[in-house]
Amino acid sequence: MKIYALGGIHVKIAIVGYGNLGKGIEAAVRQHKDAELVGVFTRRDPAQVSIRNKEVPVLPYSALPEWQDRIDVLIICGGSATDLPKMTPELAGKFHVIDSFDTHARIPQHFAAVDAAARAGNKLAIISCGWDPGLFSLNRLYANAILPDGADYTFWGKGVSQGHSDAVRRIPGVKNAKQYTIPKEEALAQVRGGETPQLSARQKHLRECFVVLKEGADAAAVENAIKTMPNYFDEYDTIVHFIDEERFLAEHSENPHGGFVIRTGRTGWDSEHAARIEYSLELASNPEFTASVLVAYARALLRMAARGERGCRSVFDVAPADLSPLPREELLAHML
Amino acid sequence: MKIYALGGIHVKIAIVGYGNLGKGIEAAVRQHKDAELVGVFTRRDPAQVSIRNKEVPVLPYSALPEWQDRIDVLIICGGSATDLPKMTPELAGKFHVIDSFDTHARIPQHFAAVDAAARAGNKLAIISCGWDPGLFSLNRLYANAILPDGADYTFWGKGVSQGHSDAVRRIPGVKNAKQYTIPKEEALAQVRGGETPQLSARQKHLRECFVVLKEGADAAAVENAIKTMPNYFDEYDTIVHFIDEERFLAEHSENPHGGFVIRTGRTGWDSEHAARIEYSLELASNPEFTASVLVAYARALLRMAARGERGCRSVFDVAPADLSPLPREELLAHML
Repeated sequence: MKIYALGGIHVKIAIVGYGNLGKGIEAAVRQHKDAELVGVFTRRDPAQVSIRNKEVPVLPYSALPEWQDRIDVLIICGGSATDLPKMTPELAGKFHVIDSFDTHARIPQHFAAVDAAARAGNKLAIISCGWDPGLFSLNRLYANAILPDGADYTFWGKGVSQGHSDAVRRIPGVKNAKQYTIPKEEALAQVRGGETPQLSARQKHLRECFVVLKEGADAAAVENAIKTMPNYFDEYDTIVHFIDEERFLAEHSENPHGGFVIRTGRTGWDSEHAARIEYSLELASNPEFTASVLVAYARALLRMAARGERGCRSVFDVAPADLSPLPREELLAHML
Repeated sequence: MKIYALGGIHVKIAIVGYGNLGKGIEAAVRQHKDAELVGVFTRRDPAQVSIRNKEVPVLPYSALPEWQDRIDVLIICGGSATDLPKMTPELAGKFHVIDSFDTHARIPQHFAAVDAAARAGNKLAIISCGWDPGLFSLNRLYANAILPDGADYTFWGKGVSQGHSDAVRRIPGVKNAKQYTIPKEEALAQVRGGETPQLSARQKHLRECFVVLKEGADAAAVENAIKTMPNYFDEYDTIVHFIDEERFLAEHSENPHGGFVIRTGRTGWDSEHAARIEYSLELASNPEFTASVLVAYARALLRMAARGERGCRSVFDVAPADLSPLPREELLAHML
């Protein structure tokens, strides 16, 4: 059996699903020197899936059972709506798995399903890993635990919302579209000033859409359909730009994102002193960064599994030291 | 025996040392609803130590052994130069203890001494807890683990440096003084822009001193003594203001601090995308905020001790969930 000593560890990772997140995992493994990609598993025809690293096999999803002994951690890169609720519990009984399930309201249910499957299979799993849920959640927890008398604010962006972009693309007459969520500077300034305002959706974020119309489509009708769309846009200030396809492909093919988690509060016997904790991310590639978070947590998962932990965990359960490739002595000497 | 269920816990805290940090603990316990202050222990004459909470006894340091059964966690509020290297190992054999030892270079040595004492006494300890070392260390670790291809920057301030203020006060002719460390905006902007510059001490921080002179002191000589002081000021741009005592007391009696931990890096197969992780604190009271961090870690320490952990730990070893007063189910449902 391999010894997973702190420090010199080596984690054999396999990917299920090769979309933007799967591609990000492949790139992240290249940067994480103690990680190795051993296989990419797909529900598509493997011959049609071309990956960057030509030394790594692309295999059918159905071949996974044969690979049980060759994979330390399986990173499941699927959608939260239908893929992960099914796949993660299914695979958690056979592998140590990690996913980025991000439907906040259904996390307890997903956690319970994965926990039961992992325990039954004597495996360890981490769900809802990435930056939100993930690093943003961690910062909400730390800030709340440390500053009991305070208020929380999460702002997203500037970045692409896939859900909102998809919603715009479904409007008749729209050929292509991208929606950016943008935090409002005035709201950020108010929060940073310690005013603990109650902010509406409209006051916190602006929505900006870049839309390519189909031949003959009615721009005014599309703009109205966007701005009045319930849940997605009607409660926000929305700016719509119509651009041609060439400009769309040149300027809007990336997936930037980021945001801010801020807690403002008070310390002191009479709560007389202000305190602010702020965490922010600015990411040129949302899926690549999310992938890099997943690879760091795959390392931690392997260490925790080697210590005998079983069942499902979240980022809240992972001690920071387990995330680092460095040995504990070095962390104490140079990072504390 | 008390049951330390996650969620409904209750932690009986005692303080050793009632300076600024000890006062901060007393105030923080008031805000952390699951914490209770059961005693303040002092090496001074207890009759001379007046605390805010009149229901809590002030007791001599020598009385500590009699209190072993009535204290869950002892928070040791002493200086890192001479107090903590002696007191923490001494007390770690008898209590679950926590300190804010902040001499970075001597952390491994202090850790080893406390670890040996805690193991011998079957106790658990956490050292070097606060915001730097502490929350800043955590953010350095998380950011490094997640973004392997990148560079780290820590900026301190705007805030009072006790060490530099003390150094100025020791200059002949100085009656009182306070030194503020201020991060330079240009440097912050460069780092945030992803340029990964190599920054000298002078390029990162400015030092600003407010000085009250003694009757008849030579201002020019004092200013020169400050600006040329080796290690403390000679490698920085320093601004010196001479003010009268009344203004000094009115405007410079607080202890604000804060700072920034930033990691900029790259993601992607060809490292083609920029990423930035930034954490910052802005604190009107440094000791009160540090105290609030210590109380949150006292809660975690008690949970970890109840699970049988023994020896010394750092913030790197504490799973975030243990810091929160909320039960795990609630964290999953509302904070992840």
